[in-house]
Amino acid sequence: MTASPVDLSERFSSFTEHWSPKVVARMNDYEVKVVKAHGEFTWHSHADTDELFLVVAGRLTIRMRDGDVALGPGQLFVVPRGKEHCPVADGEVHAVLIEPTGVVNTGDAGGPLTAGYDDSLA
Amino acid sequence: MTASPVDLSERFSSFTEHWSPKVVARMNDYEVKVVKAHGEFTWHSHADTDELFLVVAGRLTIRMRDGDVALGPGQLFVVPRGKEHCPVADGEVHAVLIEPTGVVNTGDAGGPLTAGYDDSLA
Repeated sequence: MTASPVDLSERFSSFTEHWSPKVVARMNDYEVKVVKAHGEFTWHSHADTDELFLVVAGRLTIRMRDGDVALGPGQLFVVPRGKEHCPVADGEVHAVLIEPTGVVNTGDAGGPLTAGYDDSLA
Repeated sequence: MTASPVDLSERFSSFTEHWSPKVVARMNDYEVKVVKAHGEFTWHSHADTDELFLVVAGRLTIRMRDGDVALGPGQLFVVPRGKEHCPVADGEVHAVLIEPTGVVNTGDAGGPLTAGYDDSLA
């Protein structure tokens, strides 16, 4: 066996669409996803789970009802379960998400930004 | 409330010891840890969980009985549960670990490299 690492830059260079998280690795019943963000997403929450955001490139603001968190490269934040949030990307942002298997990007909100499950990069 | 991101560079700059993972964030029943590595660790495994390594700086080889994985900055690898591995750092390495709460760094092996629980940077 020759095991291979997941190269984040290589994964980000392999697609262009925004707000469409793609699984790149699995850990127990969690998934590591890469996502490209641009502009404003939608307000939503995930009732059953926290959600980890790690910014790799660009600047992402996570708006919350009681304050915003601004993330640059090498900065991470965990949105607590049930907490309404709205990610806003200043230009294009490359981010890593880590959350349990099966979490849908728009949470309770649904709507046109809801992405299908994509593990083609895993 | 003003929520703050976790700045990985800032966290790495706040300590010097090697092979002593420090919790910087929590997500559900998982922990995000930072660790500085230097030289060879010890062969061990974690019977009950996978373990995610993400290298931020330096070059880390994860030796396994059936092959090695070499990780540079921006590369990640998930060591499967139960799989013997031995991390080896070429010079100093800064890495992020993600694993369930309570995982001990030396797994089944124990010994002098076993680190105490440290969440002083969380």
